[in-house]
Amino acid sequence: MTNGAQALMKTLVDAGVEVCFTNPGTSEMHFVAALDSEPKMKAVLALFEGVATGAADGYARMADKPAATLLHLGCGLGNGLANLHNARKGKVPVVNIVGDHATHHVQYDAQLQSDIETVARNVSPGFVRTSKSTAALSQDVADAVVAARGYPGSVATLILPADVSWGEGAVPCVVPPQPKAPVASDEVVNAIADAIRSGKKTALLLGGRSLREPSLLAAAKLAAHSCVKILAETFPTRIERGAGLPPVERLAYLAELAGIQLADIEHLILVDCKAPVSFFAYPGKKSYLVPDTCTVHTLATPEQDTAASLEKLAAAVGAANTAPVLQAAQRPGRPRGKLTAEKACKAIAHLLPDNAIIVDESITSGLMLNVMTAGCPRHDILTLTGGAIGQGLPNAVGAAIACPDRPVLALIGDGTAMYTIQALWTMARENLNVTSVIFNNASYSILNVEVERVGAVEVGPKAKSQLDLHGPVMNFANLAQGMGVHGMRVHTVEEFCKALEYAQSQPGPHLIEAMIPEALNGFKRRIMPWMLRAVPNLPLAATRALKKKMAP
Amino acid sequence: MTNGAQALMKTLVDAGVEVCFTNPGTSEMHFVAALDSEPKMKAVLALFEGVATGAADGYARMADKPAATLLHLGCGLGNGLANLHNARKGKVPVVNIVGDHATHHVQYDAQLQSDIETVARNVSPGFVRTSKSTAALSQDVADAVVAARGYPGSVATLILPADVSWGEGAVPCVVPPQPKAPVASDEVVNAIADAIRSGKKTALLLGGRSLREPSLLAAAKLAAHSCVKILAETFPTRIERGAGLPPVERLAYLAELAGIQLADIEHLILVDCKAPVSFFAYPGKKSYLVPDTCTVHTLATPEQDTAASLEKLAAAVGAANTAPVLQAAQRPGRPRGKLTAEKACKAIAHLLPDNAIIVDESITSGLMLNVMTAGCPRHDILTLTGGAIGQGLPNAVGAAIACPDRPVLALIGDGTAMYTIQALWTMARENLNVTSVIFNNASYSILNVEVERVGAVEVGPKAKSQLDLHGPVMNFANLAQGMGVHGMRVHTVEEFCKALEYAQSQPGPHLIEAMIPEALNGFKRRIMPWMLRAVPNLPLAATRALKKKMAP
Repeated sequence: MTNGAQALMKTLVDAGVEVCFTNPGTSEMHFVAALDSEPKMKAVLALFEGVATGAADGYARMADKPAATLLHLGCGLGNGLANLHNARKGKVPVVNIVGDHATHHVQYDAQLQSDIETVARNVSPGFVRTSKSTAALSQDVADAVVAARGYPGSVATLILPADVSWGEGAVPCVVPPQPKAPVASDEVVNAIADAIRSGKKTALLLGGRSLREPSLLAAAKLAAHSCVKILAETFPTRIERGAGLPPVERLAYLAELAGIQLADIEHLILVDCKAPVSFFAYPGKKSYLVPDTCTVHTLATPEQDTAASLEKLAAAVGAANTAPVLQAAQRPGRPRGKLTAEKACKAIAHLLPDNAIIVDESITSGLMLNVMTAGCPRHDILTLTGGAIGQGLPNAVGAAIACPDRPVLALIGDGTAMYTIQALWTMARENLNVTSVIFNNASYSILNVEVERVGAVEVGPKAKSQLDLHGPVMNFANLAQGMGVHGMRVHTVEEFCKALEYAQSQPGPHLIEAMIPEALNGFKRRIMPWMLRAVPNLPLAATRALKKKMAP
Repeated sequence: MTNGAQALMKTLVDAGVEVCFTNPGTSEMHFVAALDSEPKMKAVLALFEGVATGAADGYARMADKPAATLLHLGCGLGNGLANLHNARKGKVPVVNIVGDHATHHVQYDAQLQSDIETVARNVSPGFVRTSKSTAALSQDVADAVVAARGYPGSVATLILPADVSWGEGAVPCVVPPQPKAPVASDEVVNAIADAIRSGKKTALLLGGRSLREPSLLAAAKLAAHSCVKILAETFPTRIERGAGLPPVERLAYLAELAGIQLADIEHLILVDCKAPVSFFAYPGKKSYLVPDTCTVHTLATPEQDTAASLEKLAAAVGAANTAPVLQAAQRPGRPRGKLTAEKACKAIAHLLPDNAIIVDESITSGLMLNVMTAGCPRHDILTLTGGAIGQGLPNAVGAAIACPDRPVLALIGDGTAMYTIQALWTMARENLNVTSVIFNNASYSILNVEVERVGAVEVGPKAKSQLDLHGPVMNFANLAQGMGVHGMRVHTVEEFCKALEYAQSQPGPHLIEAMIPEALNGFKRRIMPWMLRAVPNLPLAATRALKKKMAP
C-alpha cells in the first residue's frame, strides 16, 4: 500500500522536484518517513523555517526548477514567510508544503491550530490549497508544481493535513510538461521597433528571466545597433555577468540616483519587470521614478519568453546579426591598508574565482561590489528581491545545493545576517562550498541613511540606539564556530585577502567576519558622494546638480 | 506641532504601555524618532522580530499589561508571527504595531509591499486595523490598547502607514480605564455547586488567569472542603506555585497520560480554559480527552473574573472559610554523578532562588521539572502556550524587563533555542538577569517520541536525519559568547551546579549549556515509563493497564 506522503513524494520526484528543505514537526512525520521511499529525493534540514524557505528560493534561482519546502503548520509558515516573500517578488518557483493537523482534529482548536490559509495568501496569492483527502493529494501536488513553475514562477502553497498524509491507497500523479512561454506579438514588437527607430533616447529595463545570457545577448545587439541603453532592475533575482557577457547598468537603490539614470530616457521598454518606483516613500518625493516625458512600453511581461521577444525585436530593427559589445576581462589590483567595506569589495573582485555565485545581501557595505566585479570572470549575482532581509545566508545554502561544483560567496551585512544565522549550521551539515563574508560595522547602517532621507531629523539617543548594534558588538566568528563553520575575524585588508584565499582553497563552509569602520553618518555630506561613485556613467551635469542640491 | 508618531507614543504611555520591543525599518523611522519625545517609553531592540514579539508576550505575562511591538511591514510581522501565536493562545495582551508603506506608495507594489492584513488576521482575529490618517491615529491606538488588554487578553494589530506616522497635527487620545470582568452568574454557580455536592468525582480545570494566587486559593478551598481535584491546563500562560501556594496537578502532554488523569472524573469544571484535547491527532486515537461519561461545566469563560467566580462557588458550597491546603517547603538534595536532563532539573530545584521566574521550553528535557520544583520557594512558570517553539528565550527577555528584580531562568531545548537564538543579544544589551539553560542532546527528541506515536514505524536514515541535530553538534557556549553573553558548557552534574551558582551570584545574563545524553529511543519501552514518573498521583490500576498495553 502507498500512503499519501509516499505518493506525494513520487509525484514530486517524477516532476523533477528532487530537493526538499525541511523543518518538520509531529504533523509532518509521515512525510518525513516517506523520504526514504524515494531515493532521488534529497532532504535538507534547516534549524529555522526562514532558512528552509530562503534555501528553496536560492535553489530554484540556480537550478531553474522548484524545490519543495516542508513547514510545520501556520507558525512554521510564519517563520518562513519573509523568504517566501522574497521568492514571490523574485518570481521564483517554490512548492511550499505546510503540514497541518489531521482534518478531524481541527475542530478542537488545539494549541498549534491557526488559520494557515490566511497567512499563505500573503505569499501565494495564486495557489493556496488544503488537500482534502489522500485520494486527491497527488493531483493537488501536481497542480502545485504546475502553478509554481509557470511563467512567472511563483510560490504555490499546499497545506497537507496529517491524516491526508498518513491515509493509505494513494496513487502518484504525472505532472504535465511545462508549456513554452509565448513570445511578444508582432504588434507590440513593431510599435517598440518604431520607438527605437525614432532616434529618441531609449532604454531597455531588464528584470526577472531577462538578466540571463540569452536575453542579455539579444538586448546587447539592440544596444550595439541602435544605441539602446541597457538597464537592469535594482534587485535582480539572478543576473549573469562578468567578462564575456554584455555589461548591464543596474538602477540604483537611491531614488535620487535612479532619477538621474532615467532622466533623459524618452522611451522605456520593460522586459519582465515593472516600471521603476522607489523602494520606500519619502515625504514630498515622488514614488514613481519614470520621467513624465517618458513613454513606457512593455516588450515582454513575466508571462512571456524574454529571450525570444528580445530576439524578435532585434530582428525587427535589423540587429539580428549585430555583434553585441561584451565586457572585457579586468579586475582591480590587490588592495592594501585599512579594511573598509569598499576595500573588501575590491579584494573580492581581485580574488573572485571562476564561475562563482555571489549572493549579495551586503546592503550599504556592498555598494561598490558591482563596479568592482564588472570585469571579473563570469559569475551570477542573486539579490534581495523582496527587501525582506535575512535572504542571503539561506539563498547561499540553496544555491550551493543546486550547483555543488560552483563556489558560492555570500556577502552579508551584520544586521541582516542575524535574521537567519541558523543557515550556517545547514552549511556545515551539508558541507557546502559557501564562503560567507559578514560585514561587521555594528550598525543597521542603511537605517542611518534612511532616517535622514525620511526627514526624521530630530534623532535622540533612544532613536539612535535602535539603529545601532553596539553593546555588545557581535562576534560572528564565534557564532560560526558555534554552528560548526570555520570562522575567521579579520581587521586588515591583508588578513581579509588571506582569509578569502584560504576559504577558496579549502572545501566546505567558511565565514569571514570583516571588521569595518562604523557606518558613515551624514547622508548628504558623506554617503551620497560615495553612492554616486557606485553608479558608473552618470551624466556629469545631473550629478553636479544633485551634489549642489545636497550640499549643506 | 505633534506628528502622528509622537501622538501615538503619548497615547500609549498614558495608557500604561511603557515598553516597546522593536525591530524597525525605514517605514518606521518616525516612530523611532518619536521614542525620544516620551521619557517614559522604553525601547528594547531585538535583532529578529520573533524576539520582539516573544518578549512582548513574556513582558505582559509578568507585568499584567501590554507592551507594544514595532515591526517592519508584512515580512517583519511574518517573522514575529509564531510568538504572537503563542501570545494569542495564551490570551496575552500585545499591542502589535506594524509599519507600512505610505498610503500613496501602496499602489506601486514596491519590493516590500504585501498584504499585511491577511497575515495579521492569523494572530489578531479580533483587531486588525490599518490607520487611515494622522487625525485618526490616536483613536486607532487607543482602540488597539482596549482590544489588547480586554478579557481575555489578545493581540491587537495596528498597521501604521509611514505618512500617517509622519503627518503633522495629531492629538493624543485618552484610553478609557479597563472595565471589571463579570463574575459567573448565580445560575451557573448553583448548577456547579449542585454537581460538587452530588458526591461524584469532580475536578476543576484551571487555565489562563485562574492559575494565579487569588484563583488558586479559592480553588484550594473547594478542594479542601469538597474533595474537588485541582488540575491545571497542560501549558499555562503563567502559573504561580511553590511553597505556601496551593499545589496543582498539571495535565500531561501525552494524551495517554492525560487520559488517566481524567479517567474517573464525572464532572469537569472549566475555569478560563477549554475542555482538554490532545496536542496533535494520532491515527485511530481520540483527540477529545474528556471521558464520555463526564459532564463538562464552565464556571468562568476567559471573558470573566476567575478569582471572584471561584470565590462565589466556594461560598455556594459552604467553603468560603475553609482553610486551603498549601504546598510545604521541600527541595531535592544536591544531585551527583552523570549529567542527565532529570539531574539537571533536580539541580535546578535544589538551587532555585527565591521569587524566580522560570520560562520552560525544555520540551522533553524538562519533564521532571514540575515534580522536582513543586516545593521550591514561590516562583512563576511560563510555558509554551501555543506550541510554536522559539518562545522561551524571548519570553525570558520580556519577563526580565517586566520584573528587573527577579531572577529569570530560561530552560530551553537545543532545537527550540535555535529559532530565536538572537534573544541572547538583547539579554546582553539590556544586561538582563536571565540564566538560560540549554539542554544539548543534539536531537529534536520530542519528534523521536512522536514519530513512533503517529505510527510512522518505518523510519529510514533520511527520516532519522531530520530529527537529529548531529553533524555538527551545536556549541551554545560559543553562540552565547558571539552575542556577548557569558556562556558555560558543562558535562557533569557538579559542573552544572557550580555554573548555576555562579550565574546566580553574578548579575547580567548567563548561558549554561548542559551536555546531556542523546534522546532516548523507544517510546513504549523507555520514554513512557519516564513520563509516567513525571505525573504524580496517577491511579495505580490505570498506570499498570497502560504499561501492559505499551509492553512490546
